Amino acid sequence: MYRAPLREIRFVMHELLGDDALVKAYADIDYSGDLADNIVEEAAKFAENVLEPLNRTGDEQGAAWSASGVTTPKGFKEAYAAYVEAGWTQMPVSAELGGQGMPHTVTLAVEELMFASNMAFFLGTSLAHGAVGAIAASATPEQVAMFTPKLVSGEWMATMNLTEPQAGSDLALLRTRAVPEGDHYRIFGQKIFITYGDHDLTDNIIHLVLARLEGAPEGVKGISLFVVPKVLINADGSAGAPNDLRCLSIEHKLGIHASPTCVMAFGEKQGAIGYLVGPPHSGLAFMFIMMNAARLSVGVQGVAQSERALQQALDWARNRKQGKIAGQPAPVAIVEHPDVKRMLLSMKARTEAMRALCGFAALELDRGHRDADPAARDAALVRAELLTPIVKGWCTETALDVCSTGVQVHGGMGYIEETGAAQFLRDVRITSIYEGTTGIQSNDLIGRKLGRDRGAAMASLTQDFLAELNAARALSPEAKAIRNASTEALTLLRDATESVQRLAGEDMARAQGVSVAYLRLCGVVLAGCLMARAAAVAEAALAATPGDAFYQGKLQTCRFYAEQVLPEAAGLARTVKGGWGSVSEARSELL
Amino acid sequence: MYRAPLREIRFVMHELLGDDALVKAYADIDYSGDLADNIVEEAAKFAENVLEPLNRTGDEQGAAWSASGVTTPKGFKEAYAAYVEAGWTQMPVSAELGGQGMPHTVTLAVEELMFASNMAFFLGTSLAHGAVGAIAASATPEQVAMFTPKLVSGEWMATMNLTEPQAGSDLALLRTRAVPEGDHYRIFGQKIFITYGDHDLTDNIIHLVLARLEGAPEGVKGISLFVVPKVLINADGSAGAPNDLRCLSIEHKLGIHASPTCVMAFGEKQGAIGYLVGPPHSGLAFMFIMMNAARLSVGVQGVAQSERALQQALDWARNRKQGKIAGQPAPVAIVEHPDVKRMLLSMKARTEAMRALCGFAALELDRGHRDADPAARDAALVRAELLTPIVKGWCTETALDVCSTGVQVHGGMGYIEETGAAQFLRDVRITSIYEGTTGIQSNDLIGRKLGRDRGAAMASLTQDFLAELNAARALSPEAKAIRNASTEALTLLRDATESVQRLAGEDMARAQGVSVAYLRLCGVVLAGCLMARAAAVAEAALAATPGDAFYQGKLQTCRFYAEQVLPEAAGLARTVKGGWGSVSEARSELL
Repeated sequence: MYRAPLREIRFVMHELLGDDALVKAYADIDYSGDLADNIVEEAAKFAENVLEPLNRTGDEQGAAWSASGVTTPKGFKEAYAAYVEAGWTQMPVSAELGGQGMPHTVTLAVEELMFASNMAFFLGTSLAHGAVGAIAASATPEQVAMFTPKLVSGEWMATMNLTEPQAGSDLALLRTRAVPEGDHYRIFGQKIFITYGDHDLTDNIIHLVLARLEGAPEGVKGISLFVVPKVLINADGSAGAPNDLRCLSIEHKLGIHASPTCVMAFGEKQGAIGYLVGPPHSGLAFMFIMMNAARLSVGVQGVAQSERALQQALDWARNRKQGKIAGQPAPVAIVEHPDVKRMLLSMKARTEAMRALCGFAALELDRGHRDADPAARDAALVRAELLTPIVKGWCTETALDVCSTGVQVHGGMGYIEETGAAQFLRDVRITSIYEGTTGIQSNDLIGRKLGRDRGAAMASLTQDFLAELNAARALSPEAKAIRNASTEALTLLRDATESVQRLAGEDMARAQGVSVAYLRLCGVVLAGCLMARAAAVAEAALAATPGDAFYQGKLQTCRFYAEQVLPEAAGLARTVKGGWGSVSEARSELL
Repeated sequence: MYRAPLREIRFVMHELLGDDALVKAYADIDYSGDLADNIVEEAAKFAENVLEPLNRTGDEQGAAWSASGVTTPKGFKEAYAAYVEAGWTQMPVSAELGGQGMPHTVTLAVEELMFASNMAFFLGTSLAHGAVGAIAASATPEQVAMFTPKLVSGEWMATMNLTEPQAGSDLALLRTRAVPEGDHYRIFGQKIFITYGDHDLTDNIIHLVLARLEGAPEGVKGISLFVVPKVLINADGSAGAPNDLRCLSIEHKLGIHASPTCVMAFGEKQGAIGYLVGPPHSGLAFMFIMMNAARLSVGVQGVAQSERALQQALDWARNRKQGKIAGQPAPVAIVEHPDVKRMLLSMKARTEAMRALCGFAALELDRGHRDADPAARDAALVRAELLTPIVKGWCTETALDVCSTGVQVHGGMGYIEETGAAQFLRDVRITSIYEGTTGIQSNDLIGRKLGRDRGAAMASLTQDFLAELNAARALSPEAKAIRNASTEALTLLRDATESVQRLAGEDMARAQGVSVAYLRLCGVVLAGCLMARAAAVAEAALAATPGDAFYQGKLQTCRFYAEQVLPEAAGLARTVKGGWGSVSEARSELL
């Protein structure tokens, strides 16, 4: 049983982040807190009632391949039809492309619920939004008109085709080629790890494919972006002949079994017909529009699986009776045992901290697109871009630990698949890998994101948080604990940032030996600052409504975060400052 | 491909721990370093050639249940026969019981290889040794003669029957009952999570079952131990009628698929015939003989899976080519990328540290049983008992992280089951749960193990290490780094120990809110001291054989441990000292 954490999501949207900025920036869609609440509540119903019941059965059945195509598990087709019918595919898309144009702040809240209820289902569904963005940014008006309306309506779905067997993190190595033929190209090549590369949810699938034009420059500067539909589209928009592409096989994976991960063959015969979008050799930049949106989403997947793991572990711990506690009749519910309570507090504190950080990044992204002040807009966008690798890397690594702790709370039952706790661990394990591993995120963070402005965006972010912490009233012991711990941790982060910048300036490879430690430090500290803000909000709210359980619980998790999560910062900061030599001076042949 | 890490195992046995103590204590079996090497080398061949080829296929096929019994995957029966034929079942058993009486130091080294090559196979096989110990300690000479010879020879296998649906970590709740009938009892009850509760490897299975005599006291003081054979044994030792017990079903688990985890029904008809061993109501103490041996073994399982994960990740990282490194032709092997190298160093450093700690505990156990000096013997046994929960808890939690890192090194390929990296993560995930969860270990550590001598054994251990660190020559930068980092971390540990003892004295429940952090601190610091010793040994060896790659590699991992692993101690110590209130003052209803 999954229950959408609506109170907590409202807290993040309205109390932690606040509605003012969005109300101003999204006046064109009459944005209001109530509108956001309504959307999230509808999403909650859909997630709880339609998607959640298919999560376990989808895992058990998995997607199935046959020569005639891939089929999704029982119920997925109906669920997708209901998803389209309810208009969810249109929600995040801008109005000019036929959508409702909701802010990222709302979109990501909705995504959390969808991913939590059924990650394997929503992975495919959520691709169309990014594809529409990439096509709109790169293609001609005719191409946009040809491909995007049915993606926005949900009649079609989309895919991202980047990886090839020899080209994973290093796209410079990709070999898929495109040969010109009239107004289109013929595409030849094999792509792997294609999420929902084939399925039975829609009649057509719009593949975004990276390939090389003949004579293109070597490396990533010779990659172009093509739209390659599964079924060709006639001039009048009706379905034409099947294109020359197919799914050769699907992968047998650790988790997300219901999500077909396809090996795709393009051009086994005469070549798959594809349409170049954007100028030649500039495909990677456009694909990164899709990728960057996906990276925040993957961070949210971490939040989502953590929330599910927490809910299931809490249910178990409240009902499972074992052992004695002084002063209570034996056996007691295991939630009362200190170490079990500790595990649950750890899961809850970190899940709330991750959610706060995702919300914070989403709001910066919205301000970065919509703020009335151009300077503020630019600054917000840069801040959102700085936060993206941190959200993606830290939330997914933390979620892995949270989901593993969820198994642990169950004891032996956690290891039994029917219990369900293991599925969250299996499913979440991919999140720190796809759309750029944690290592890739950390190198992006210390390389591109700190490097392009010499750390100015990071300095402004930590400065703003420090000012906020200094100004915050903290009367309760809990609020004091998290304020003081965050202030101290921020000092460590500023110090470590200086150190990593200096190191990167001297030799980027050295800095990369501690870049993941730095990314983790950023995540745990910045989210800690948001927990300090949360404690201040909760404290103020309790003054108005004494005894309110939600705010009391919030203070409780903030204190735990201060005393048992933020201490990690000390070790990470130390590793960032003094640990690089143990990597850069290590010889790989001695491993 | 698994290659037994023979050089490293020899290093731990002969150079890190030294042969002197064992040569003296095991003069009766003519123990020598060469003997140990021969045994380990034979075990390596068996593990690599017989067990490893069945690891992946065993995972894929899994154990299978039918009404007529459980069958193991293809090849397991032949492998077991070869295992028995080679005499491995006799190796750890004392000479008076018909075994070869090898020290624990050797036994655990052999176990590492067996568990690494095929954890699911060896889980069943390794149970007989503990069962023989429990029977020998509790039973009459006639009972010992009836049951143990065929367990020692491997003709039969054994099981431990503790858990019931309502009685997991809390055995006080167990309900299985024993009704007297002549010279035996009739057993009635259901047991769950019984490893190799049924299988086709041997004709008979000796079940050790905890049950209550009628009128027994409540709680754990009313539990007795029974031997319940699958097939009854005639007076002449020949096979009699089937006993009234059967496997009702086997579990569908996250990992160790080839190991049948059984629901066992005893006494569905007239009652299963069982033999009381030891005095009534004292069963738990004898079962703990089996359990304590198992706990060190489970720690070794962590080492074993970590070593496999490391080997596989290294192979991948040396062969997979992606990306650029300044000064090298692109694409380069990913092992050269700093973050990949960091992950591999982290896996290697922690695997070596865990192995050293397991060896250290095993040697203390051997000295505790065999040292000529009674006072030294007692002190060593107490130290081994102190180390047991640390080995079990820290090695399994660390192994989980190492195996997950192994998946990460592979990128997307790590998530594909055929790659094999995911299996190690799935298999190892049970180790921090069974034979007492990490929470149970940590409460044993701060409760019984620190409590019984007011921390004297821990104080003596840290004092000995401190003296060793102070006396150690450390000329190389690597040896200096690990010596200094360990010395500093030991101070943190001594301080945290005082704090946790004071807290436990005031209120044990408070201390239990930070007991896992304390256990992890013990593990990372004590293993760090052994890494400092390893660096000193390596440094001295390099003076004699300059350029030796093994010792150079050892110094490299010791430095990494100092700079990127030991910093964890700072955060853990802080949590131990200041984090208890965030748990003990938390209210479970606010979670």
